[in-house]
Amino acid sequence: MNEITKNIRIVMVETTHPGNIGAAARAMKTMGHKNLYLVKPKIFPSAEVTARAAGADDILATAVVCNSLDEALQDCLLVVATSARDRSIPWPVYKPDDCARQIIATAQTGQVAIIFGRESSGLTNVEIERCNAMIKIPTNPDFNSLNIASAIQLICYEITNSIINLNNDTSNKASDINLASSGQLIQFYDHLEQCMIDLNFYNPGKPRRLMRRLKRLFNRARLDDNEINILRGLLAAAQSAVNKNKGD
Amino acid sequence: MNEITKNIRIVMVETTHPGNIGAAARAMKTMGHKNLYLVKPKIFPSAEVTARAAGADDILATAVVCNSLDEALQDCLLVVATSARDRSIPWPVYKPDDCARQIIATAQTGQVAIIFGRESSGLTNVEIERCNAMIKIPTNPDFNSLNIASAIQLICYEITNSIINLNNDTSNKASDINLASSGQLIQFYDHLEQCMIDLNFYNPGKPRRLMRRLKRLFNRARLDDNEINILRGLLAAAQSAVNKNKGD
Repeated sequence: MNEITKNIRIVMVETTHPGNIGAAARAMKTMGHKNLYLVKPKIFPSAEVTARAAGADDILATAVVCNSLDEALQDCLLVVATSARDRSIPWPVYKPDDCARQIIATAQTGQVAIIFGRESSGLTNVEIERCNAMIKIPTNPDFNSLNIASAIQLICYEITNSIINLNNDTSNKASDINLASSGQLIQFYDHLEQCMIDLNFYNPGKPRRLMRRLKRLFNRARLDDNEINILRGLLAAAQSAVNKNKGD
Repeated sequence: MNEITKNIRIVMVETTHPGNIGAAARAMKTMGHKNLYLVKPKIFPSAEVTARAAGADDILATAVVCNSLDEALQDCLLVVATSARDRSIPWPVYKPDDCARQIIATAQTGQVAIIFGRESSGLTNVEIERCNAMIKIPTNPDFNSLNIASAIQLICYEITNSIINLNNDTSNKASDINLASSGQLIQFYDHLEQCMIDLNFYNPGKPRRLMRRLKRLFNRARLDDNEINILRGLLAAAQSAVNKNKGD
């Protein structure tokens, strides 16, 4: 169990209420999770955080405070966000138990991040574009105000369940594919955007969601190392054709 | 869903912290539960209860305050207790998901109670003897201090899941995405291959598995109509850059 959960990090983005950070640490620890990342928390550390952690002080002591979401996602092969809302642009959406199975399959060999947004406003679209998939926790359509620490409790619980089931099941073995890191993906998307600008296919001033749609496509596919190299080779070949024109 | 949950009551025994009652009401409401029974709560109602309920005021307003556990269990056909600890007196113990299935099977025709003990000391053996079964929530053996509202959140979530599965609901619904047909995919792959040849990126005589790798990538992503159009537009733009060279 520790071998898998040590590769999973819980990322809380701009959490406002310190009590929620403490409650999240407690929730994580009850389910055997250790890695808490805090992106620009409003108040941390504080007495209220510690009180609500109710003994999960070690989680708070080792929590990593980050200045940006990208910093918190470094080296992650799988990034999932949680939401209780529906979004206008559909992202791949999984049930908690289905997503938990994917999370532990990846976490057997690499880093996984699970992102929880602001209490009031959740995650921005730009933040969601950093994710491979979303977890939708089923809630009452008339009252979907799930507390953030409760959401963390539920997801950590589903991961624990999946690990217990995994130990009774050999079909979910880790594959030998090297998934692309989030840093490689950022470079690839930058390259893709520049190539499309060079080809006059894309105007960053009038984006009409083009980059978001392409990110959604490639995030969904979960690119590996080799695929990133192929795609970037293809982009470079297209840019080279444009540059020959300019040279003439 | 309401037809089943209206027969299920959440019973909190001698809860000490008013915040936990509020958080429990919120947790229940997010999962579509309404019936809260409070056996000798230390402080109820109070401003802290209402604050932590975060809008689940209707649950608090209709909460039934009882002087004894027996009063709270009246008319119940199935009574289950929750525990994160192991007991010396062996009682039938179920996993949350297994027990949730039993709960909704009974709740289709009769009343069910789910009991949550004191924050510090849980339930007494006499109280447990009033139960048909126990739910053991899997926790970290070194830190099983699960918050009571979090435990209520988890159990209500598992009941919601079981109801959704019962109705064979949501997950199998057709999405509004038009997946690309296999004919569209064949045309896209032909276009991709021709574009890569035009760019001198690909030699069909020495393929080194390149097309197979790209097909695997895009098949995995399950492209939709719109994505096919974007990608083919991009391929056409790259080909047009090559043709300008030739024209010069």
